[in-house]
Amino acid sequence: MRAGPSQEEVRRHNLGTLLRYVHIHGDTSRAELTTKLGLNRSTIGALTADLAAAGLVTERPPQQTRRAGRPSLVVRPESSQVYAYALAIEVDRLRAARVGLGGRILDRRETDRPRGMQVIDAVQPLAGFIHEMRLDVPEGARYVGGGLAVAGMVRRDDGMVRLAPTIGWVEEPVGEALSEEIGDVGPLIVGNIADVSALVEHSRGAAAGRDNVIYLYGDVGVGGGIIAGGRRVTGHGGYGGEVGHMVVNPKGRPCSCGSRGCWETEIGEYALLELAGRGHLSGREAVLDVVDAAMRGDWAAQQAVRQVGDWIGLGVGNLINIFNPEAVIFGGTLRDVYLVAAAQIRSRLNEVALPACREHVRLRTPELGNDAALIGAAELAFERLLADPLL
Amino acid sequence: MRAGPSQEEVRRHNLGTLLRYVHIHGDTSRAELTTKLGLNRSTIGALTADLAAAGLVTERPPQQTRRAGRPSLVVRPESSQVYAYALAIEVDRLRAARVGLGGRILDRRETDRPRGMQVIDAVQPLAGFIHEMRLDVPEGARYVGGGLAVAGMVRRDDGMVRLAPTIGWVEEPVGEALSEEIGDVGPLIVGNIADVSALVEHSRGAAAGRDNVIYLYGDVGVGGGIIAGGRRVTGHGGYGGEVGHMVVNPKGRPCSCGSRGCWETEIGEYALLELAGRGHLSGREAVLDVVDAAMRGDWAAQQAVRQVGDWIGLGVGNLINIFNPEAVIFGGTLRDVYLVAAAQIRSRLNEVALPACREHVRLRTPELGNDAALIGAAELAFERLLADPLL
Repeated sequence: MRAGPSQEEVRRHNLGTLLRYVHIHGDTSRAELTTKLGLNRSTIGALTADLAAAGLVTERPPQQTRRAGRPSLVVRPESSQVYAYALAIEVDRLRAARVGLGGRILDRRETDRPRGMQVIDAVQPLAGFIHEMRLDVPEGARYVGGGLAVAGMVRRDDGMVRLAPTIGWVEEPVGEALSEEIGDVGPLIVGNIADVSALVEHSRGAAAGRDNVIYLYGDVGVGGGIIAGGRRVTGHGGYGGEVGHMVVNPKGRPCSCGSRGCWETEIGEYALLELAGRGHLSGREAVLDVVDAAMRGDWAAQQAVRQVGDWIGLGVGNLINIFNPEAVIFGGTLRDVYLVAAAQIRSRLNEVALPACREHVRLRTPELGNDAALIGAAELAFERLLADPLL
Repeated sequence: MRAGPSQEEVRRHNLGTLLRYVHIHGDTSRAELTTKLGLNRSTIGALTADLAAAGLVTERPPQQTRRAGRPSLVVRPESSQVYAYALAIEVDRLRAARVGLGGRILDRRETDRPRGMQVIDAVQPLAGFIHEMRLDVPEGARYVGGGLAVAGMVRRDDGMVRLAPTIGWVEEPVGEALSEEIGDVGPLIVGNIADVSALVEHSRGAAAGRDNVIYLYGDVGVGGGIIAGGRRVTGHGGYGGEVGHMVVNPKGRPCSCGSRGCWETEIGEYALLELAGRGHLSGREAVLDVVDAAMRGDWAAQQAVRQVGDWIGLGVGNLINIFNPEAVIFGGTLRDVYLVAAAQIRSRLNEVALPACREHVRLRTPELGNDAALIGAAELAFERLLADPLL
């Protein structure tokens, strides 16, 4: 329980709110900011001047206007001058990007990695990408920090990767190792890949404007990023959203976590490939091949997709009963499986989810596609700046 | 996205924060309020004076003090002068109470109801209770409103009971019917019984001070009230928390909701009684008899409790993976089942829940017992007052 803020706290809050607005919505006229933020024109003018003086936004006249009177200046985030590094460690690949304020990807790098990589196998190429990208940073640009998204469970307080069974890591201080390898990277914040992807699909993607959202990220395993009442559900230590380890089939397959019948054992990569008679294969490409084969009419692939779709529908139905969301977004390879199994998923979901809980839910694919993980990782770094822009 | 508040909004917010503090914590010295709310002494003095003038609190010298200097006045909520009516419709009984500011139950009534009651069967006795309790209300006392807790899914906007399968209601405007029957009851806010119970166990009970909490309420079915990051998870329409309809056994028993293998078909009253060889019985008392028999060493009852405990552990494990909570509270008849099956529940939960998600979780029984539903129903009515005490 906390008392209301002081005048100075209110001003800083308003600076953050204005900067966050243009960070998410891009170029915005002062007139629109006045309306959206519920502040008067002179306050908006003063706040904008402060942010411009700090090099965070610029102002310019609108390109054209047909309305009479003095046109409202347009406020623009300084995307090319204020940036963060974004990194992602996924099961099959490593990615890095330089992301400008406003969520614009300015530069990017990517490489495949064989499964079973050690921490050093991830850290060295990522550090190399950052060294490369650094060469093109314009003179005088402001670096705000780095964010790392990992397909695993991350301790909120210090970025320790507690468990990433699909990569094969247990209790690995990945953030620390990466900071050491890069050298002067400054603050590096680590998050779960489904969580950060949910964050950006919520702020600027398929779930913009919706307050109750479930983002599912699938590859070998399945992670969830959940927004309830407009805020991320992270849990006590930051480990919430492990929907892939919801047991849905107590007599089912053993799971890498040590339990049995977890949702991801029925809808993850291994299940799909095995059902399609391709149990000897693995990886993102193999999954996409099954989806393609199903679309082309291959019987075994269609059966596999249908069965996996049935289990997806069951688990999504469970989550809908728990969260009564407005949107469920299918990311990672689940996106592709969803596109070919949508009817099956809907049908099973309708059996499981209570009508009141599911009546307004929309099933969606990510609007930012695979960029969500990178933009989301950058958000981890931008968050500090947005909370208090003049800090 | 919203700009910071004006000075007057800050003052009203602070009045609400102070009143909420004494509402939850009871008598509090001005010195403690200064510390806890982070406001200076003169501000606390002014706020308290405003609340006292509105008849919401009183101030008095502390009963004794050994410290030198002027003792700090104690602020006390006006429990006997400011009150709400609280009503609860459960599967087997109807309850009503008059609850004073501070969450004090001033008067109460209760009656058993046979199962399969019509709305009129619930509404008439509850209205009668209110008429009775009204006779003892002191002259000049201030009525703030009424709250109703129902064992069913409630639409947040208008209190429509969408589905209460264990009572047998579908799309019943219970709040409206009750308001009509009582006459001049004023605003009557309807909520789900597990949600409102979670609310008070979180604010002043077994989960006080914890921000991530799962409250389970069991009778025939199982409902959940969930607190994530300090706030209730209600979902888009207010129907979130239907954990009893999470499918955990796809090949299991048909459920009253039309699906199959829902968690409540494995851990609800019917399953327990059937497993104990008492499938011809029903009701709260029959469940408590099985628990007693298990404690006394009855073999069939012990087997039943063990099997139900196993399924409880599985579902709780699922919820722990999703929410990474600090506490799980077992309410309703689940409280009694938990007390006799705790070892079984823990053991299964440890298999299902990931170590990082469960490492700080405590399993608890409600501290406010069955009063949680009544105090929680009253909170629905007090909420408007606490949000803006001078309204």
